[in-house]
Amino acid sequence: MSRTDSAASPDLDFGPDGLLTVVAQDIDSRDVLMVAHASPAAIEKTRETGYAHYYSRSREERWRKGESSGHVQRVDEIRVDCDGDSVLYLVAQEGGACHTGHETCFYRTLDGEVVGERVFEPETVYE
Amino acid sequence: MSRTDSAASPDLDFGPDGLLTVVAQDIDSRDVLMVAHASPAAIEKTRETGYAHYYSRSREERWRKGESSGHVQRVDEIRVDCDGDSVLYLVAQEGGACHTGHETCFYRTLDGEVVGERVFEPETVYE
Repeated sequence: MSRTDSAASPDLDFGPDGLLTVVAQDIDSRDVLMVAHASPAAIEKTRETGYAHYYSRSREERWRKGESSGHVQRVDEIRVDCDGDSVLYLVAQEGGACHTGHETCFYRTLDGEVVGERVFEPETVYE
Repeated sequence: MSRTDSAASPDLDFGPDGLLTVVAQDIDSRDVLMVAHASPAAIEKTRETGYAHYYSRSREERWRKGESSGHVQRVDEIRVDCDGDSVLYLVAQEGGACHTGHETCFYRTLDGEVVGERVFEPETVYE
């Protein structure tokens, strides 16, 4: 067994912009739902509340998934990758993850085929 | 170069650094394996060869997953997220994805618990 298997809490490596990459995966469907970013405070808020928080690079603010749509993510576990610069939120997703109404933001193939299911109508959710 | 790049990525939104985020997910275990980056040429090589290619920000070069370890990723499908700045490689992973010998780079929880399986000994794979 090498030292990588030690139980020490992994260090997070936030980038020059103070953020790391977050992948959210649904614990039931196992679908990858979305990719976003998190600041140290967003990670801390996520741990503290049990609900997914992120940091928006465009709005330059921390946000809680579902704060406008109600489609919150209850975080079951947070995993860290080998070099500490990405984390994985394993979540129970309320409604759909994507603002387009799809269950996952990855609802299209690179060829443009829509393969993901639409689970809500955005017009009825976002005013 | 730019011709193939544009044909490969009509919808893709590469960042100011010319890269986007890639998540690799195992099509069998459905585990999230790793997060990395790709240039237009890396995406194009992936489509062309059917094997996962990425772009290393530290080494500033395109790389093919498994080129030193043999642990290649056969790419079954590429999905694009809603705003086109992240893609998902759905892959069949040969060996383990992580250079530490684990099946996935996300083998630890934020609390430091090792939850992922080690599937090879790094010493025997990397010279």
